[in-house]
Amino acid sequence: MLPKSVKVVEVGPRDGLQNESGIVPLAAKVALVEQLADAGCSVIETGSFVSPKWVPQMADSAAVFQQIKRQTKVRYTALTPNLRGLEAAIEVQVDEVAIFGAASETFSQKNINCSIAESLERFMPVMELAQKHQLPVRGYVSCVLGCPYEGYIDPQKVAQVSQQLIAMGCYEISLGDTIGTGTPVKTQQMLEAVLENIPEGKLAVHFHDTFGQALVNILIALQQGISVVDSAVSGLGGCPYAKGASGNVATEDLIYMLDGMNIETGIDLKKLTHAGLNMMQVLGRQSNSKVALAITA
Amino acid sequence: MLPKSVKVVEVGPRDGLQNESGIVPLAAKVALVEQLADAGCSVIETGSFVSPKWVPQMADSAAVFQQIKRQTKVRYTALTPNLRGLEAAIEVQVDEVAIFGAASETFSQKNINCSIAESLERFMPVMELAQKHQLPVRGYVSCVLGCPYEGYIDPQKVAQVSQQLIAMGCYEISLGDTIGTGTPVKTQQMLEAVLENIPEGKLAVHFHDTFGQALVNILIALQQGISVVDSAVSGLGGCPYAKGASGNVATEDLIYMLDGMNIETGIDLKKLTHAGLNMMQVLGRQSNSKVALAITA
Repeated sequence: MLPKSVKVVEVGPRDGLQNESGIVPLAAKVALVEQLADAGCSVIETGSFVSPKWVPQMADSAAVFQQIKRQTKVRYTALTPNLRGLEAAIEVQVDEVAIFGAASETFSQKNINCSIAESLERFMPVMELAQKHQLPVRGYVSCVLGCPYEGYIDPQKVAQVSQQLIAMGCYEISLGDTIGTGTPVKTQQMLEAVLENIPEGKLAVHFHDTFGQALVNILIALQQGISVVDSAVSGLGGCPYAKGASGNVATEDLIYMLDGMNIETGIDLKKLTHAGLNMMQVLGRQSNSKVALAITA
Repeated sequence: MLPKSVKVVEVGPRDGLQNESGIVPLAAKVALVEQLADAGCSVIETGSFVSPKWVPQMADSAAVFQQIKRQTKVRYTALTPNLRGLEAAIEVQVDEVAIFGAASETFSQKNINCSIAESLERFMPVMELAQKHQLPVRGYVSCVLGCPYEGYIDPQKVAQVSQQLIAMGCYEISLGDTIGTGTPVKTQQMLEAVLENIPEGKLAVHFHDTFGQALVNILIALQQGISVVDSAVSGLGGCPYAKGASGNVATEDLIYMLDGMNIETGIDLKKLTHAGLNMMQVLGRQSNSKVALAITA
């Protein structure tokens, strides 16, 4: 059974832009977030409160939150990898925060220099403070369908980390195919493992389109009853130095599919496409969205 | 139930290259066909025997057939829109030919200046001569999920034209989403209508990726038991003047998915990707295959 409506979590301003090498002007970020809200996006991952040493592109996230004109129906969210980040996020009144864990031990070690268990432990104080402020916390799990170091990832490992994040108090788990190597049958097997202990209503999927498989895996997730999907306008998120490395699944292409399936999203495809094209003009690149390219051809 | 193996019909050399504006050297076409065969492609649509006035890019199809080193396991096929074309095809010993009909009256009128019924009638002598030479004939149906003039196409119309082509003697029907506007639910409904009277074993799907929906629609077809899929290496087939108008689904991305699902195709992804990249070098453009881009990034 397919869901009747899908909540699209627009991650372009954060997961999309965080790897940009050039400076993206603050005004362009603010404009993007506002245009996404105007297009009907109801959840917008707006920034990340992380050391600018690690992610220089997100150094102005507080300013973005301060400058955007907010719409009451929209939830503006942020990634908060530590207590200091969360405090900064609270200061600028984010609506929701996110923490993360990997499903791959090696990825966790190489990426944040600690084991998965340690990484979750470190998030404990973040969870506590967020709960004190009644801030909903989302949990990201990375490498759910493959790891650049380990290759195959056991679905049980994904299920385990997801459960731990739920147990810590995350209201929703976003399952991320970080390197985009997932394919339909494996996606289904992974989801079935996670769904054994977590109801579909608490799960989201987050696919990168590196090998062109994102949409097909999202369809599998919809067929499993999952109704929250992460995506980035224009397919933002690729590493701009690696010319082929495409990023998140393009929100435009996702909406085109969902519109065609009569699945409600509340998002206006035309306005969304324009929001993306405006940002691509700033970045000086062609959009990664086939819909955007087809519309402007 | 998913099929255990899929027959991939590689249409790059014909449907892929026919819209190229610049001249593609004969030697490059020959090399492409030979490299595709080396990569394990078992059916290669190698050319089209049509007036060079209409499709100048296919003017040298006879020469391509004459110059390729053939492999015994590979079927080299061609489009033969009329008796003269079929005679020319027979002369260079094509293994299989194809005729076509539209599922849209307006498209048929605008494209070939006659009604669907008239177009099928005109193919009668082609069918007869092909049968006399024991040549298998494939039937293409275009506009099965939308028409540039009519928009919506009734699945019953697709079913009807498909049945007529079967009745005329076509051994297989390739259902073509010519403008790439299909989405999963509509694809399923269309296929269900066609499957009412034609067994899955006689059906193939042919998706263009204009709006990024090709792979997801192919998955729907696989889920319906269809196991013949058309695709073009490098996603060839877009109109090179319209920068965004992408062409056929890229064979590389299809094989990546099928490999991941443990569905047998006999095609070596690495060799296939190289065949495509060689042609893109000739064309001077970036590949439309995400897999090819990711591998070379």
